[in-house]
Amino acid sequence: MLHGKVLVAQGGGPTAVINQSMVGAVLESRKFRNVDLVYGAHHGVRGIINEDFLDLTQETSHNLEMVAQTPSSALGSTRDKPDRKYCHEIFEVLRAHGIAYFFYIGGNDSSDTVRIVSEEAKAADYPLRCIHIPKTIDNDLVLNDHTPGFPSAARFVAQAFMGVNLDNAALRGVYLAVVMGRHAGFLTAASALGKKFPEDGPHLIYIPERTFRVESFLADVKAAYDKHGRCVVAISEGVHDEKGTPIVTTLSKATEKDAHGNIQLSGTGALSDLLCEEVKGKLGIKRVRGDTFGYLQRSFIGCVSDVDQREAREVGEKAVQFAMWGDQDGSVTIQRTGFYSVDYKLLPLASVAGKTRVMEDHFIAESGTDVTDAFRMYLRPLLGSGMPDAFRLRLNSVPRILKK
Amino acid sequence: MLHGKVLVAQGGGPTAVINQSMVGAVLESRKFRNVDLVYGAHHGVRGIINEDFLDLTQETSHNLEMVAQTPSSALGSTRDKPDRKYCHEIFEVLRAHGIAYFFYIGGNDSSDTVRIVSEEAKAADYPLRCIHIPKTIDNDLVLNDHTPGFPSAARFVAQAFMGVNLDNAALRGVYLAVVMGRHAGFLTAASALGKKFPEDGPHLIYIPERTFRVESFLADVKAAYDKHGRCVVAISEGVHDEKGTPIVTTLSKATEKDAHGNIQLSGTGALSDLLCEEVKGKLGIKRVRGDTFGYLQRSFIGCVSDVDQREAREVGEKAVQFAMWGDQDGSVTIQRTGFYSVDYKLLPLASVAGKTRVMEDHFIAESGTDVTDAFRMYLRPLLGSGMPDAFRLRLNSVPRILKK
Repeated sequence: MLHGKVLVAQGGGPTAVINQSMVGAVLESRKFRNVDLVYGAHHGVRGIINEDFLDLTQETSHNLEMVAQTPSSALGSTRDKPDRKYCHEIFEVLRAHGIAYFFYIGGNDSSDTVRIVSEEAKAADYPLRCIHIPKTIDNDLVLNDHTPGFPSAARFVAQAFMGVNLDNAALRGVYLAVVMGRHAGFLTAASALGKKFPEDGPHLIYIPERTFRVESFLADVKAAYDKHGRCVVAISEGVHDEKGTPIVTTLSKATEKDAHGNIQLSGTGALSDLLCEEVKGKLGIKRVRGDTFGYLQRSFIGCVSDVDQREAREVGEKAVQFAMWGDQDGSVTIQRTGFYSVDYKLLPLASVAGKTRVMEDHFIAESGTDVTDAFRMYLRPLLGSGMPDAFRLRLNSVPRILKK
Repeated sequence: MLHGKVLVAQGGGPTAVINQSMVGAVLESRKFRNVDLVYGAHHGVRGIINEDFLDLTQETSHNLEMVAQTPSSALGSTRDKPDRKYCHEIFEVLRAHGIAYFFYIGGNDSSDTVRIVSEEAKAADYPLRCIHIPKTIDNDLVLNDHTPGFPSAARFVAQAFMGVNLDNAALRGVYLAVVMGRHAGFLTAASALGKKFPEDGPHLIYIPERTFRVESFLADVKAAYDKHGRCVVAISEGVHDEKGTPIVTTLSKATEKDAHGNIQLSGTGALSDLLCEEVKGKLGIKRVRGDTFGYLQRSFIGCVSDVDQREAREVGEKAVQFAMWGDQDGSVTIQRTGFYSVDYKLLPLASVAGKTRVMEDHFIAESGTDVTDAFRMYLRPLLGSGMPDAFRLRLNSVPRILKK
C-alpha cells in the first residue's frame, strides 16, 4: 500500500448519483491509516492543473451524506481531455502535494483520461494508483452490465413518457421527445418502460443503433397515427443517416464541438423542431408537438433510483478497496449476478477506456422502432422501488340517443 | 334540487391533479338521491356534441381513486370553444340524455364555455346547473388565491431548477430554460423556489408581466455571468416586446393558432434556441445551453404537490355541494384563510369567465427579473410536503504549492 494523500475528482456530464460515488470513495479512504488526507479536485483534471483542491477531510460526515443525495457533481466537472503535456502538468502538481491515489469518476472520456494519467505516471516513474470509477447516463461503458447514473436518468425518461403519453391521450396529436444519447440508445429505449397498456405511447422509438431515414419515420408516424388517432415518439439526439451524419447537423447552422471533437447535440431544440415541421408539412397532421428533455434528465432532483444510489455508492467504496488491497490500477465495473444483484470487478483501464458500448441487438425489436422483453427485463430492476403507476377509466360507453 | 343525471367534463390543458377534481365530483354526486347516473364526456364539450359519454356510475371506487392519482385528463380534453350554435347542439344532447348537472373542469377558456352554456340553457329555458371547477397550471384565474394544477407544475419547475442549477455549477456557462405561461408569469417565477444559496440560479427570471428587451436581457446575462462565472435563466414562453408581440413570433416562420386565436408557444424549442444564439453571438460566451420544459411540467408523474391533490379533490366535491345545496350556477374559487389554509366560494360565472389574472406587482422585484419574499411566502406552502433539498461541499481550500 502506498502512503500519501487521496485525490478524488469528477469528470464529464453530471448524474443524479455521481456524488454517491465521490462520498463512497472519500469515506472509505478515511478508514485507511496510510491515507494522510483526502482531497477533492475542483472541476476535474482542470482543478488539478490549477492546484484547486478542497480538503474533504475537513468536511463532516453528515454534510457528505447530504451531498451524496444531491444530484450533479459537487466537486464541479470539466470536459478537458488531457494529452501527454497536460498529464505532465498533472504530475507536477500531484508530486508537489504528495498524492498517491487518484480516483476519477466519469464516463468514456474520463476513463481514457485515467488511462493516460496512469501511463504517464508509470513513464515518469511516479508511484500513483489510478482508478476509474464508472459513471454515465448514456450507459455506454463496455464490460459493464450498466453504469451508475443511467438507472436514475432512465427512471426520469420512463416517468416523463408515462406523463406525456397521458397528456397526448387527452389532447390528441403527434408528440415527439428528443432524449440524450449520442451513440447509445439505452436512455431513449428506457421510454418503453413508461408504457403500461398496449395502446400507450411511446409508439415509436428511434435509437442511434439503427439508421434513421426521414421517409421511414414519416411512414411509421402515419401508421401509428392512423391506428391510435395519436402518436408518441421517443428519439435519441444522436440519430443519424446511413453515412453516420447526425440528423441534427443537416439543419443546424452552427455545429459547436467540444474538446473531444463531439458536436453539440444537447441544449438545443433543433432536432425536435425540424422533425415536427416534417410531420406537419408532409403528413398534414395539425397538432404536432415536440420537446427536448435536455438537462432535466440527468440532474432532476427527486426522481432518483434507490438501486442506482446504492450501486453508485458501492463503486466508490470498491474503488478504494481495489486500490488499497489490490494495489493495482484499473476501472471498476458492474457485473450482474442475479435477478436482481450485482458485484464489482476491477478491469484493466485499457479494456474499458475510450470504448463505446451500444445497445446489443437482442435488446432491439426487429422493427427497429421498439425494444424487446429482454430489454424490459434488463432495465426494470435498475429503476428501483416506488415507480409511479398510471391508471385509466374503463370504457363503459353510454349508448347514443340522437345518433347525429 | 333538480332531478336527473350528472355530467362531468375536462377542458383545456391537462394538469397533474385534474383527475382529483373529476373523481371528487363523481363520488360526491353519487351521495345524492336526486342523481340517477353520473356520466363523463369524452374529450370535453366535443364529447357532448358527439354524444360520447362514459357511464362513471359503472366504475369502481378503487379505480376512481387510482385514476385520481394519475396525471392528465382521464376523460380526455379539448380546445373547442363553443359559440351559440355549438351550445344549441349541446342542449339537444343534454336534453335527450336527461342531464341536469354540468360540471366543467378547466381554465379561462373553459370557464367561458361554462358561462355560455349556462346562458344558452337559460335562454332555451332548459333547467341545468352549470358549475365551473377551476384548473390551470398558469394560475391565471381571477378571484382565486391560486388554481389547482399550478402548485404541482410549480413544484416541477422548482425541482427542475434545483437540478439544472447544480448541473450548471458543475459545468459552467449560460443555461436558460423556457417555462410555460402565455400571459401570467407565476409558473416561471416558481423557479425562484429552487434557489437555496445566494449564488444559486436562477439568477434571472423573465415573465410576461414585464416588457422583454433583448438588449437588457443580454446586459443582465453578462452582469450575472461576470459575477458568478455562470448564469441560469428562467423565461416565460410568453415574453413579449413593448407592443405585446411575443418574442418567439419574431423568429418562427409558421405561427400556428388554436381555436381561441392563441399562437402556439409550447411544443417548440424556437425561443430558447434564438436566445442562446443571441448570447453566443453578442456576448461571446462559449458554453450556452437552452432547454424548453414543454409538456413535462404539466403532467410529470411522480412530482406532485400533496396540497394540490387535496385541494383539487375538494373543489370537485364542493362544486357538487354548491350545485345541490346552493341550487345556483357559478365558478368554484379558492380563498386563502390562513398560513396555510383555504376555503372555497362559489362566485358568479361572469366574474371569472374569460378573464386573465397576471402576477401582482408586489410579487415582482423592482429589477423586474426576480420575485419578492411575498411571492416566496405565497408559493412555498402550495408546493406541499417532502420537497427535496440540495447540499454542497464546504470550501475548505487547500493552499497552492506550485502557484503557477
